[in-house]
Amino acid sequence: MKDVQNHSATKSFALNRVGISEVLKPACIQRPDKVVMLTARIDLAVDLPSSLKGAHLSRNMEVLTEIIDNSIRTPAESLESLCLRCAKGVLEKHEYATIAEVSMEAVYFLERGAKPSMESYLLFAKAVCSRSEKSRRFLGVEVSGMTACPCAMETLREKLIEAHGAREILTRLPVITHNQRNRVRIDLEIPEEEEIEADHLIEIGEKALSTPTYGILKRDNEAEVVLQAHRNPKFVEDVVRDALHLILQKYGHFPDEMQVRVCSESEESIHKHNAFAEKTTTIGELKKEFNSSL
Amino acid sequence: MKDVQNHSATKSFALNRVGISEVLKPACIQRPDKVVMLTARIDLAVDLPSSLKGAHLSRNMEVLTEIIDNSIRTPAESLESLCLRCAKGVLEKHEYATIAEVSMEAVYFLERGAKPSMESYLLFAKAVCSRSEKSRRFLGVEVSGMTACPCAMETLREKLIEAHGAREILTRLPVITHNQRNRVRIDLEIPEEEEIEADHLIEIGEKALSTPTYGILKRDNEAEVVLQAHRNPKFVEDVVRDALHLILQKYGHFPDEMQVRVCSESEESIHKHNAFAEKTTTIGELKKEFNSSL
Amino acid sequence: MKDVQNHSATKSFALNRVGISEVLKPACIQRPDKVVMLTARIDLAVDLPSSLKGAHLSRNMEVLTEIIDNSIRTPAESLESLCLRCAKGVLEKHEYATIAEVSMEAVYFLERGAKPSMESYLLFAKAVCSRSEKSRRFLGVEVSGMTACPCAMETLREKLIEAHGAREILTRLPVITHNQRNRVRIDLEIPEEEEIEADHLIEIGEKALSTPTYGILKRDNEAEVVLQAHRNPKFVEDVVRDALHLILQKYGHFPDEMQVRVCSESEESIHKHNAFAEKTTTIGELKKEFNSSL
Amino acid sequence: MKDVQNHSATKSFALNRVGISEVLKPACIQRPDKVVMLTARIDLAVDLPSSLKGAHLSRNMEVLTEIIDNSIRTPAESLESLCLRCAKGVLEKHEYATIAEVSMEAVYFLERGAKPSMESYLLFAKAVCSRSEKSRRFLGVEVSGMTACPCAMETLREKLIEAHGAREILTRLPVITHNQRNRVRIDLEIPEEEEIEADHLIEIGEKALSTPTYGILKRDNEAEVVLQAHRNPKFVEDVVRDALHLILQKYGHFPDEMQVRVCSESEESIHKHNAFAEKTTTIGELKKEFNSSL
Repeated sequence: MKDVQNHSATKSFALNRVGISEVLKPACIQRPDKVVMLTARIDLAVDLPSSLKGAHLSRNMEVLTEIIDNSIRTPAESLESLCLRCAKGVLEKHEYATIAEVSMEAVYFLERGAKPSMESYLLFAKAVCSRSEKSRRFLGVEVSGMTACPCAMETLREKLIEAHGAREILTRLPVITHNQRNRVRIDLEIPEEEEIEADHLIEIGEKALSTPTYGILKRDNEAEVVLQAHRNPKFVEDVVRDALHLILQKYGHFPDEMQVRVCSESEESIHKHNAFAEKTTTIGELKKEFNSSL
Repeated sequence: MKDVQNHSATKSFALNRVGISEVLKPACIQRPDKVVMLTARIDLAVDLPSSLKGAHLSRNMEVLTEIIDNSIRTPAESLESLCLRCAKGVLEKHEYATIAEVSMEAVYFLERGAKPSMESYLLFAKAVCSRSEKSRRFLGVEVSGMTACPCAMETLREKLIEAHGAREILTRLPVITHNQRNRVRIDLEIPEEEEIEADHLIEIGEKALSTPTYGILKRDNEAEVVLQAHRNPKFVEDVVRDALHLILQKYGHFPDEMQVRVCSESEESIHKHNAFAEKTTTIGELKKEFNSSL
Repeated sequence: MKDVQNHSATKSFALNRVGISEVLKPACIQRPDKVVMLTARIDLAVDLPSSLKGAHLSRNMEVLTEIIDNSIRTPAESLESLCLRCAKGVLEKHEYATIAEVSMEAVYFLERGAKPSMESYLLFAKAVCSRSEKSRRFLGVEVSGMTACPCAMETLREKLIEAHGAREILTRLPVITHNQRNRVRIDLEIPEEEEIEADHLIEIGEKALSTPTYGILKRDNEAEVVLQAHRNPKFVEDVVRDALHLILQKYGHFPDEMQVRVCSESEESIHKHNAFAEKTTTIGELKKEFNSSL
Repeated sequence: MKDVQNHSATKSFALNRVGISEVLKPACIQRPDKVVMLTARIDLAVDLPSSLKGAHLSRNMEVLTEIIDNSIRTPAESLESLCLRCAKGVLEKHEYATIAEVSMEAVYFLERGAKPSMESYLLFAKAVCSRSEKSRRFLGVEVSGMTACPCAMETLREKLIEAHGAREILTRLPVITHNQRNRVRIDLEIPEEEEIEADHLIEIGEKALSTPTYGILKRDNEAEVVLQAHRNPKFVEDVVRDALHLILQKYGHFPDEMQVRVCSESEESIHKHNAFAEKTTTIGELKKEFNSSL
């Protein structure tokens, strides 16, 4: 039978990425203290030389299925290691490919709050496997919380003092400002011999916001969250920088070339549009910047 | 040639709605004071008797195309009249159908703010045409603005007074609370001989919120918006009820059977989930409720 | 402390639905043969009398959290029973409400295919609890598969015969046509003393399509799927009607008043827009229609 | 008044991108032969040095509003020049920033088809302005059309011949296969002194697919579209490579450093997931590859 995919396409181009996207799979992860079932959304790609017409995409699903469906029987140690095993498996099956990349995204839950409740987060894992270089793994999280605007707070403090006097009390108190949902995303490359905890990245995200947010807030808890946000007002720029500081504290010993990306997006309550800040860098650059700022 | 669609399907069922969805078309509307170009997303449906296998969907697109593409040359008088003309046209082409429904959705802009800027809204129009009853038209809008929570404000007022004294000043001043984006949607059925303005529904939505929001806010404008929101704190329930009062004031003379729906959804800054309130009713029921509450 | 939510709002309106939306929770279900972990997206609403200003939304999350977070320790018997328990719990907590509605949506997986692989589906569950009437439960599924167009196939059969002759062979063979992804959704009300299986609704959806689709398709399997689709070409109208027949066969003994809704949406490969068909009815009406068509 | 945004943040990090996202604006473009009204979705970012706490985001909206709202009175010459003017304006207002980037996305329509109808496409424009380097402009389009799978067609040809004989006729005829919606996206950097037409990129996208698709298809047109797709079966890899060849033919005289990206994503009718192929390169690299393949 004619093998259409191996047919040599004359005058053709090599392709950077050929693969499958939006694959949904249940994935099971065994963490030290718990088993986690995730509904993972998966993308997978390999490169394709100019000499080949097609990338045998059905093999990709065989690899994903064998490895991920199997995690239900034997849980994987982490989402990023599941990505790595898939990327390795794909590279083995596609002898022509020189690089394979697998990424996964899933909703994840942790118990939080004065009235404990399962709070939702997003996990992002990625592995890149190449024939010539060391494999790379990445773990990311997205944390939804609150920011209160420090700028509007100071403007309003002055306005209220102007209109009502009471400078002494208004200088000491948190003053009204706009606050809103803010999604902070943190992505970190993981060195070969290390493991990191998604829960630690989530904690960094929660600390970088004006305040984390919670499903259940009785009147007193709600007041504390609002108070915490207004005592800790932050721009999107502050959220990113504070997360970067916390990353340096916890992962500053990682090799210089490890990549870091932090992004904060604020669904501004005073605007119909969003505000955002982003830094893409490496652990080495981050340390250099930090040291030069001392 | 075999006409598969007219083929009588034995032992079959009548269908309520058969049609096309997610059609994108440019539509041009001539208002008294301006010409508006919209990118409309359109759904269209007719009923299908049990005796027919298929609904000749290509005719639907012919009708839509003839009527809507033509609006670029000769603007239509309104989005809902464009829906009505399409529904009528579809009913003429499908002699078997007894009812046709066409709905359209589009982003719409109005100039707003102390520093004028084009602000975005959503328009929703719908027409239902039947062989046995009068045609019906509906117009809806979605307005994005801000709500500040009245409940957290009162809790925090007490807490701050408890901790800092200064009862006199804190009783007079707006106090910190959570605030957030709130989308209020208003849908109203339009009587046969009347026309309504989307701009008026948008104004009702803006008034029903704690405050409208704006693209450009210099420091002073930002302070005013924040102050306005905190002087006018509202639950989602308040937004819906205040919009209903404004609808009664403006459209209370409409026939009793005209339908009204108001929904407010708040993207809570203290939670990862939303809060919402909704009322679906008629002008007649609304008047009855209002009078009995006097 | 001032209770803002109980404050009687004068001249106010009763609201049909006040609640929370887009809550994410992990939910655990124990089926006869397996334990299923779901990432559920939850909406919840109660009605609110005109005499009350606010609906105490924090109580809703307490109920959801207590009942759903608890399913992780003690799995629930089904997603719809989880909805029902939440709706009952919410009604108990809101003494003013006369009706409570809870709905959940989740991605769900079943092993399928000649090369077995976990295939994804959507589950929808809903429960409505009222003080005056019997509680109601609903279960729904969305199945993604393929439809091939019967109309274009017949047109092309004629055209190809016209151009190439070979009438005999072309009359016997499936001929080229457009085919595409089709999502069929089935929702069924469940009688009080009955339980139904989501897996059975999924099977009905898969049978109603031209063919189900699969993650892994080696060359032979792919050919069989394509062949099956072209031997079984279907309009969206056919998908809905065939699903309705299968529902009658399996659930025709359900009480007449049980609600049924089937919708098929085809992401037309020859158009940029979709085609859809829908029927909303009851078991009783469906039986009546079926009998009169005999 | 305290200027919170200029406050020097000690021990801080420079940020790559600080800005606003999901801004909606009406934009008006004057092309040689027509005036086009677009509903643009806009993102804007500048870099922020470590010495500054905040990026004065309100100035961004002033620039966008002045330039884009003004296009309604005096249409801009193109979407990418509108981006460039906004990026330049933002860089002027933010004396601390060294680079500004503005991107816009909009639905766009062209008349197409045997039965002419407005067909929808997506436009993407981007401009990057820096203090030290030449400004860069990019234009992109997304075209939705159809691909038919060449691999399944050959498998089925063999199977059908095996089962039914008639090798002679089945070798000459297009045979059944799976076909589906395919979105091809083309992005091209535009040299300083050149202008390109979005309509030409759209034509390239349409030619690269198995066939473009249309809103209105009467029986004969539908048959032609299906026939065209099956006479021209393509993998996602083929779509990308064919678009790259067409880009070289039309824009091969562009400077070597101009960037090119082509991506094709197929919403596979036989799978629940998508297949995709992508190439990111430059005009120079593309020419080199092409010449070496001769």
